Parts: sequence; C-alpha cells; structure tokens
Amino acid sequence: MLPSWTDGPARGEIVDFVRRVTDEDSSAHVPPAGRIAVFDNDGTLWCEKPGPIQSEFLFRQLARMAGREPKLAERQPWKAVVERDYAWLGAAIEKHYRGDDADLHSMVDGLLQCYVGLTTDAFARAAGDFLRSGRHPQLGRPYLACTYAPMTELLRYLAGHGFTNCIASGGTRDFMRTVTEEVYGIPPENVVGSSVALEYREDVGDIVHTAAVEVFDDGPMKPVRIWSRLGRRPIFAAGNANGDIQMLDYCARGPGASMCLLIHHDDAEREYAYTGGAEEALMRAARDGWTVAGMAGAWRTVFAPAAGALQ
Amino acid sequence: MLPSWTDGPARGEIVDFVRRVTDEDSSAHVPPAGRIAVFDNDGTLWCEKPGPIQSEFLFRQLARMAGREPKLAERQPWKAVVERDYAWLGAAIEKHYRGDDADLHSMVDGLLQCYVGLTTDAFARAAGDFLRSGRHPQLGRPYLACTYAPMTELLRYLAGHGFTNCIASGGTRDFMRTVTEEVYGIPPENVVGSSVALEYREDVGDIVHTAAVEVFDDGPMKPVRIWSRLGRRPIFAAGNANGDIQMLDYCARGPGASMCLLIHHDDAEREYAYTGGAEEALMRAARDGWTVAGMAGAWRTVFAPAAGALQ
Repeated sequence: MLPSWTDGPARGEIVDFVRRVTDEDSSAHVPPAGRIAVFDNDGTLWCEKPGPIQSEFLFRQLARMAGREPKLAERQPWKAVVERDYAWLGAAIEKHYRGDDADLHSMVDGLLQCYVGLTTDAFARAAGDFLRSGRHPQLGRPYLACTYAPMTELLRYLAGHGFTNCIASGGTRDFMRTVTEEVYGIPPENVVGSSVALEYREDVGDIVHTAAVEVFDDGPMKPVRIWSRLGRRPIFAAGNANGDIQMLDYCARGPGASMCLLIHHDDAEREYAYTGGAEEALMRAARDGWTVAGMAGAWRTVFAPAAGALQ
Repeated sequence: MLPSWTDGPARGEIVDFVRRVTDEDSSAHVPPAGRIAVFDNDGTLWCEKPGPIQSEFLFRQLARMAGREPKLAERQPWKAVVERDYAWLGAAIEKHYRGDDADLHSMVDGLLQCYVGLTTDAFARAAGDFLRSGRHPQLGRPYLACTYAPMTELLRYLAGHGFTNCIASGGTRDFMRTVTEEVYGIPPENVVGSSVALEYREDVGDIVHTAAVEVFDDGPMKPVRIWSRLGRRPIFAAGNANGDIQMLDYCARGPGASMCLLIHHDDAEREYAYTGGAEEALMRAARDGWTVAGMAGAWRTVFAPAAGALQ
C-alpha cells in the first residue's frame, strides 16, 4: 500500500491514523459515515506552478474575448493577456497578497464577463475540453497527468478504508468537477470550491452564469463551505498553503481522532521548491503538530507515468 | 411495492418512469449516477399545516429570548410570540406573499439574533431535541410521525432502484439535517435548504452562526442550489407549492426522461385541504403535464402508524 511514499514518518503516521480510526476495538474508532477526508487541490493533489492550471484556461478565455472585441485589448486585464505580459498578471497576484486588490478585481471582472449567460453544461464542456487536451507548459505532461501519484494513492487508500474523499479548493468548483471523478475518483457532489453566482432562467430552462462571484473558497471560508456541504466535520485534511490553515485547524480541533497533512514543496528537481504562500502554514504545522510531507523525502515518485494517468 | 398508494394514475406513472430509466434496454435508460431525485420537504414529505414544523421551533426560541430580556416582549416579533398572537404572525406571512416584507424581516432579524455565536453542533442539538420530543398541535402525532407514508415508501422505492434522494427545501438546511437520515434515509450531505451565514472562529475552533441569512432556498434558487450541491440535474422532482415550480421545471427540461410530481392537499378528513400557495403550481402542472397526486385519491394511507415512524 502507498507504494509511491517512502517508508518515512509521513507514511507511517497516515497508516497508523487509518488503522486507529478503522479498528473497531480502538478508542479512536470512527464509523464510516464520519470518515470524511478533505483535500485542497492546487499544490496538494496536482501541480500549481508556474501558476494554477485554471489560470491558463482563464487567460485563454480572456484572449478569445479580446479577439472578438479588439478594443478590449487596449485595457487591462485583456491587454496583459493579449501581450502575454505575465509580469502584469503576476504582479496582480502579488499585489493581492499585499492587500491591494485593484488589478485582481479588474481581472476577475473581466473573467466574469466571459461567462455571463453561459449554461453550466456549456461551461463544463469548455473546461473539460481544456483539461483533456492541454499540456503543462514546463513539465511537458498532459494536465491530467500533473496529479501527484502519492496523493491519488492516498485517496484510493482512504476510500478503501471507508472514507469519503472531498475536494475543498480555492479553484472554481465547476472547473474541477469536470475531471475529479476521472483523476481522483471523487464525484462532482464531493467537490467544494469557489463559485460564480448562478441563476435559473426559465426562458432557457437552464442554469446560467451571472457576472458576480458567489464565494471565494479560501482561508476561513473553507471550513464553512465544507460543513455547509456535508454537515460533518472532517477527520482528515490535507493542504499545502496558507489558505488551508483554517481547514486544517477545523479538522484538528474536532472531538475525536484527526490527522492534518501539509504537503511541502521542496523538490526543485522533480517538481518545484517554494515556500511562498505557505510560510504561515509551515509555522502552524510545526506549532500544532500537523504532519509535514516534504516531497523530496516523503515521495518515491511524484507523478504517475503520463499514459497511465490518462487512462 | 408502494402499498400506501392506490392503484391509480400517479402510482402507475411512478412505476412506469422507474421501469423506463432503470431498464438497460430502454431508450430512456439513465445510469445510476444520473438518477437524482429531489424532494421539497414541508407539504411534500411531511405535514406543513397549520404552519411549518420549524416555525414552532423558531417561536420557542423567540419566546426564550424574550424570557431572558423582558424588554424585548414590548416589540415585534417577540411581542406576538409571547402573547401567542398568531394573527400577527400569520399576517406577516400573508403580507410577504403580497410583497410587503417588513414584518417578515423583523421576524427573521429577531430569529437570527437567537443564534448568533451558536456553534453548528449546539444548533443541531437544539433542533434534534425539539423534533424528537415535540408533537403536532392538531394531529396529536409526534413530529417525526408527521411524515407521509406514501412518500417515505417512494423514497425507499427510488433508493432501491439506484436513485440518490435529496431534499431541496425552503426550510433551514441545518434544522432538517438532524433527522433526515432517520425519517427519510437521506444523509446530511443530500439536504439542500435555506441557511444562515456561518463563520469559522479560530478562537473556538468551530463554525458559528452569524446574524445574516446566507440564502433563502425557494423558487428560482432551488434549481441553482441543487445544481451547486450536486453538479447534476435531477430526473425526478416532487413538490407541492409555488416555490417548487422552478425546481420542477428544471427537472422537466433536462435532456432525457424525467418525472415531476406535485402533491395536492385535498384531504380535509385525513390531513388538510388547501390550495393557498399552490395555485400557480397546479396550473403549471396542468399545462406542462406534471403528475398530480391528490392525497384523497392517490394515497391509501397518509401517515404511518406513529410508533413505527418513531422506531
């Protein structure tokens, strides 16, 4: 079991935790209905560098929009996308983390314009087509082969022990839902994430996108959205960034046994090495005793063979 | 099967629909993952007269609040609750349906004050205790025995044919979730409903209620919330009131086979006879060919024996 994990402390703690909560004679036993495991997606289940996979999808939508309305290319964020000005795009994210959201908001507003009036089915087709046909710009792997083999093994291992796996991501729920069953064995109803506000249009008999964000599912919203969806507190949570702290904390502070896993990107050779955006999470892990899995040491393999991952 | 249903058209259409979507050789076949059935709760799965069961719970909370802060009893809505002024309470609802929401808003604002800072667990205990100990004021039955026997049979029948049953109710999600597994076999994650905005409080390590409504899950919000939760369009939908029209319409207008069921309360002898709040729904059912089940003719039994329902 868990062959892509090295025989180190992270793997040992996972196996020990699963044994304790599934053993009916253990004081830490949890019945199957309570075995809820939640996973962040970008950087936890699949690669998030050089940027989240979804951002390329969004940039293409913006570029397509500017292609239809050339005047848009004269202003941000379309200008940056058309000119492939990654410096502007990167700076918008950097500024966001410093509390200046003006550029990020202009980007989000632009993106929302791409989808107004689009049905949920049409959006799902566009997202699914992108994910099934695209390729990571640096790793050269198909997007769907950018999932981490140790984590998909962990999902199967937990499912095999009666756990219900859920995704709780800052990424867009309806983007990920198109592939989570295929790549993670997680059905759409167990995907929680950010969402655009939707409305029912009786004239078309369908649900369409509006120009508003419903919820940005990050930080303190993660536990709230998990509970709202499931009506249960998770006993296992895995993340990799500061936006996962409250989800991990919520899991850790439940009444019974729990396990929190923080993936640490310290593997410049096989993936990427970075702590940006994870500084606080690493400190909290050390303070609160969460399990930290450094990719370089904890994982024998990072990615599954590309062909296999796409089967 | 379905012994509490008379051998009439409603039962016949249900059995025929289930046969068509489960028969692998049928052109209307739907694989199990797509067999989503959604049910309104108040008036569809259990009795909603003289008022929704939840309203008594809410009134008790308001009365308790006024008991702690006697000055509250001098103003609405606490005054009406303390003085058992059902005329004022009823008028607030009536006014709402005429577009005047002032009194209803004062009531909702008062109710929200009852729960500020309460954890989701504490709320669930209060709701569960109320539902398990209370008794219907006119039927004399325990609340949990106010479910309709033909509908709980229908839930079992659908589940037995690979359907996933969900509740989509205007009532509060977290109120119903405390008993839906027990009375309907529907786990908490399949309950969609109105909700109070929640927040994660790191100081207590838990999710607590705020003083704001997150969503009132009625009318056009029902299909949106169903899709947001499940990522799938239902193929079976049952309701009883105008607030269910869009949910039924969304189901009816899917790409494949679907069935819409409208429960009609025409049984003054065994339950209640009323069309108030269902006028448009009945017209839409006639226009669009939804199946109408009048309780007097379609149901052999309305309520299960009380003792059995509570086991």
